[in-house]
Amino acid sequence: MILVNGNEDSALDPRDRGLAYGDGVFRTFPLRAGKAVLWQRQYDKLAADSAAIRIECPPKQLFEADLGKIAAAHVDGVIRITLTRGIALRSYAIPATANVTRIVGWSVGADSSGSHADGVRARWCDLRLAIQPALAGIKHLNRIENVLARSEWNDPAIAEGLLRDVNGHVMGGTMSNLFLLRAGELITPALDGSGVAGVTRDVIIEGARANGVNVRIAAVMPEDVRAADAVFLVNSVIGVWPVAAVDDTTWGANPFAERLRHWIKNAEIR
Amino acid sequence: MILVNGNEDSALDPRDRGLAYGDGVFRTFPLRAGKAVLWQRQYDKLAADSAAIRIECPPKQLFEADLGKIAAAHVDGVIRITLTRGIALRSYAIPATANVTRIVGWSVGADSSGSHADGVRARWCDLRLAIQPALAGIKHLNRIENVLARSEWNDPAIAEGLLRDVNGHVMGGTMSNLFLLRAGELITPALDGSGVAGVTRDVIIEGARANGVNVRIAAVMPEDVRAADAVFLVNSVIGVWPVAAVDDTTWGANPFAERLRHWIKNAEIR
Repeated sequence: MILVNGNEDSALDPRDRGLAYGDGVFRTFPLRAGKAVLWQRQYDKLAADSAAIRIECPPKQLFEADLGKIAAAHVDGVIRITLTRGIALRSYAIPATANVTRIVGWSVGADSSGSHADGVRARWCDLRLAIQPALAGIKHLNRIENVLARSEWNDPAIAEGLLRDVNGHVMGGTMSNLFLLRAGELITPALDGSGVAGVTRDVIIEGARANGVNVRIAAVMPEDVRAADAVFLVNSVIGVWPVAAVDDTTWGANPFAERLRHWIKNAEIR
Repeated sequence: MILVNGNEDSALDPRDRGLAYGDGVFRTFPLRAGKAVLWQRQYDKLAADSAAIRIECPPKQLFEADLGKIAAAHVDGVIRITLTRGIALRSYAIPATANVTRIVGWSVGADSSGSHADGVRARWCDLRLAIQPALAGIKHLNRIENVLARSEWNDPAIAEGLLRDVNGHVMGGTMSNLFLLRAGELITPALDGSGVAGVTRDVIIEGARANGVNVRIAAVMPEDVRAADAVFLVNSVIGVWPVAAVDDTTWGANPFAERLRHWIKNAEIR
């Protein structure tokens, strides 16, 4: 089921600026037992990301009505919300009277999180992310870099690719945020030049700090990854993937993964 | 009139990767007396840009059938072709069996080229373009940078904004390529880190060289713009705009503009 401005199975106007210029933002998160997981945080991110590219985010209630329609048909799965600047006028200029387009879609959830709970294999991607502070951290629709990076491998045994920016800093996975554990401290890349600052990343940072675990948000180099005691990839859909290998560097199971999962669960039930 | 995969007024599937990730490329060019201007060059660019992001471009004949349908209804205007990787599977991975989406749309042409023929006012944009060699020069659908740059001004007397990259190099306008005239030589920015390498830019480079005018494709700094004898902004729809001012730097009319226009006309009738 996909709702476009609240209408079921409604199709998109091909003049939409979301298509024309990737002029919009999105969120992807689980629907579990009819509930949008961490919905308030997802909405807050959507609103903040929209504001960062000067799109006015509709009120939460509109999305909740859409989510209610979906939950009446599907209790579990994955929700994607896309918000665009609306119909294009064949100009980059932002229309004075733009009506945003609101798309809320359901799809069946992958069961990949379960199968990867014991540790995934990852690889280093060749593509280097461009540095654009004006868009860094935002989950916007300009994602060809991610598509090209993900196209570097086909081996289904490799679950994720790690991305560096043009300066060689590690920014995370193609679709996930990265945490390193070293000497009891968590380290996650600063996302001021590229990357997407996800809800799960926030939840883990907050959970760690609330539980006396130091979190450093910093520049991360490949040698920091290789020297880590444990490596974790996280997002709203996969939860926490412990990393068993990045190319030739390997790690054994680390009980810290359960702490990350616990902090996420705690945030979900609050 | 907008054709989606050849079907008139057909709407877009909201799961299209062109919307989901800006995963596609486009062209914009005039329709004049029922003919797509410089069509062979536009198609060649579309095919080359598609290949650069691993999208298979449909054969020229399919687009020509679309253009024929449009020309039966409209003899003049502007055509936009958008080509996307097709329907998304909620993954950045390129589907093994992706069917591209082909969108060919007509819109009424702006008459701005005539009114700006004597010289336009431009400004320096604050936004700096990110450097991404993997996407530089390609007219892809990831254009939020252009949207944000164009949103920096509302004054209708300012026709275009000049963009620099993060290193301070001038890359062109938000929707146009840049040529400088200095001591009888043309200079245009090298587009190996960002920007769009347009058809009109190619035509002018070739026309100049065929007529004994030296063209240097090089890094351009703002001081090079200010020191130029004349400045021109070009694209397929506007043709050639001589620049009368960039912020406080001004230029008088320069007869060289007519030479650029002549080279474009020559390419169009060949």
